[in-house]
Amino acid sequence: MKTISTAKSHDGVQGVYSHASEACAGDMTFAVFVPPQAKHGPCPVVWYLSGLTCTHQNVMDKGEYRRLAAELGLIIVCPDTSPRGENVPDEKDNWQFGCGAGFYLDATQEPFAKNYRMYSYIAEELPALIAREFPADMKRQAIFGHSMGGHGALTIALKHPDRFKSCSAFAPIVHPMVAGWSKPALEKYLGADETSWRAYDAVALIEGGKSFPEFLVDQGKADTFLDDGLRPWLLDDACKAAGIPLTLRMQEGYDHSYFFISTFMNDHLRWHAERLAK
Amino acid sequence: MKTISTAKSHDGVQGVYSHASEACAGDMTFAVFVPPQAKHGPCPVVWYLSGLTCTHQNVMDKGEYRRLAAELGLIIVCPDTSPRGENVPDEKDNWQFGCGAGFYLDATQEPFAKNYRMYSYIAEELPALIAREFPADMKRQAIFGHSMGGHGALTIALKHPDRFKSCSAFAPIVHPMVAGWSKPALEKYLGADETSWRAYDAVALIEGGKSFPEFLVDQGKADTFLDDGLRPWLLDDACKAAGIPLTLRMQEGYDHSYFFISTFMNDHLRWHAERLAK
Repeated sequence: MKTISTAKSHDGVQGVYSHASEACAGDMTFAVFVPPQAKHGPCPVVWYLSGLTCTHQNVMDKGEYRRLAAELGLIIVCPDTSPRGENVPDEKDNWQFGCGAGFYLDATQEPFAKNYRMYSYIAEELPALIAREFPADMKRQAIFGHSMGGHGALTIALKHPDRFKSCSAFAPIVHPMVAGWSKPALEKYLGADETSWRAYDAVALIEGGKSFPEFLVDQGKADTFLDDGLRPWLLDDACKAAGIPLTLRMQEGYDHSYFFISTFMNDHLRWHAERLAK
Repeated sequence: MKTISTAKSHDGVQGVYSHASEACAGDMTFAVFVPPQAKHGPCPVVWYLSGLTCTHQNVMDKGEYRRLAAELGLIIVCPDTSPRGENVPDEKDNWQFGCGAGFYLDATQEPFAKNYRMYSYIAEELPALIAREFPADMKRQAIFGHSMGGHGALTIALKHPDRFKSCSAFAPIVHPMVAGWSKPALEKYLGADETSWRAYDAVALIEGGKSFPEFLVDQGKADTFLDDGLRPWLLDDACKAAGIPLTLRMQEGYDHSYFFISTFMNDHLRWHAERLAK
């Protein structure tokens, strides 16, 4: 692991790091905030997965998580959203596919199967690195994210209910199999057989029997992607049918941006901290 | 005035606007956060002046001022740092001069005198626009800033002690006449006669008899610009000699970045809110 930068912030350390990733067959960059409490012992880990077009940097700059994370003693890990680099296949004019659009899945189709393995990266490789390199209490982990990253948080939590004590999302893509802006990506990464897509779709996972203790979702009502890409009511239906408690808060006037995310960041961090303390 | 964007944030509105500026002979962009309290009446105005290379956007993205401004009921105005545009003379390879480096002064030298009039812009033209277009209580104003913007805040406050109820700064350039990274700019904007520079230098203004009720300054001790560019002890000396109370906090381990600024943003907003309430 290579340290790209560190800066003191809110009495903790905001760092940016890179490492050679086996899962993604290339260098990956990520950000970690370590709170001041880590001087005295391992701290719980909260994973934040970002949305389409983002890197680790968007939430690091605009997410406004450090003040409360420093107060609550939370390590915040912010990975990149896809593999990147000269040898990574990409569609430069398509913001919904390729670089910046890894969809937290393991691609099976060529030429993407070699690098686009964000599911294995986030679920297996990066946690091992975090456990090794940071003062992290890996018995206490939580996960959340925004948009495509909300999709990532929901699906990864549903597959690892024993690992994560809590899961929440800002404006998640809850049913990417049917959403206009994600369906083409699933097809290119996973092939035409839609049954293979269900492993990376929160609604389909719940329909298929996966479960989680409870979810918190915030969704802006002025989000221009609400009706086509996001449709949180589909998650609400699936959770109701499966008996999973979902706190879905439709927020009047808020859009899809980090102005929305940062407004409700503290609510989510408190939600996680309460459950991590149990 | 043209609205470029607005987004709901912390129950207020973060907007970006542009207008044809007479002072700068061209279009200028700025950001304004209006807190929810403005629905019920005019709110006090806090001016944040940014540092070298910044636009209105850096602090809007990374300053983390909205949560507390929304709680305290403060309008936050974040102007650009210089004129910009095709017809504005610039030195593209020099980050300490030209675009992004207006130094909050009125240039007298050609070819800069036409556009580089940030003092008149911030002290006269933009306040008139804010008073006209926003629910602003112009009888209650405060000013602060970072680095070059800290210099701007200090000098403008010293010239307008009756307008501003409070002034603070993050890592300000307190004595630009003698600092390596600002002296060449003063010479190019104002000419070789150093007596003309004193009107835009906090230490020189205080030595010349200008005063202000009190200042708050935070300075990171790990700031790489501390010894050459910033030297807050020179302000401390000048304030002591003039009997101006200065709260100078040297912050262990903090650098010059927005990770530093956002850490102490709430302290500064509370400092201003207390004095604006008097």
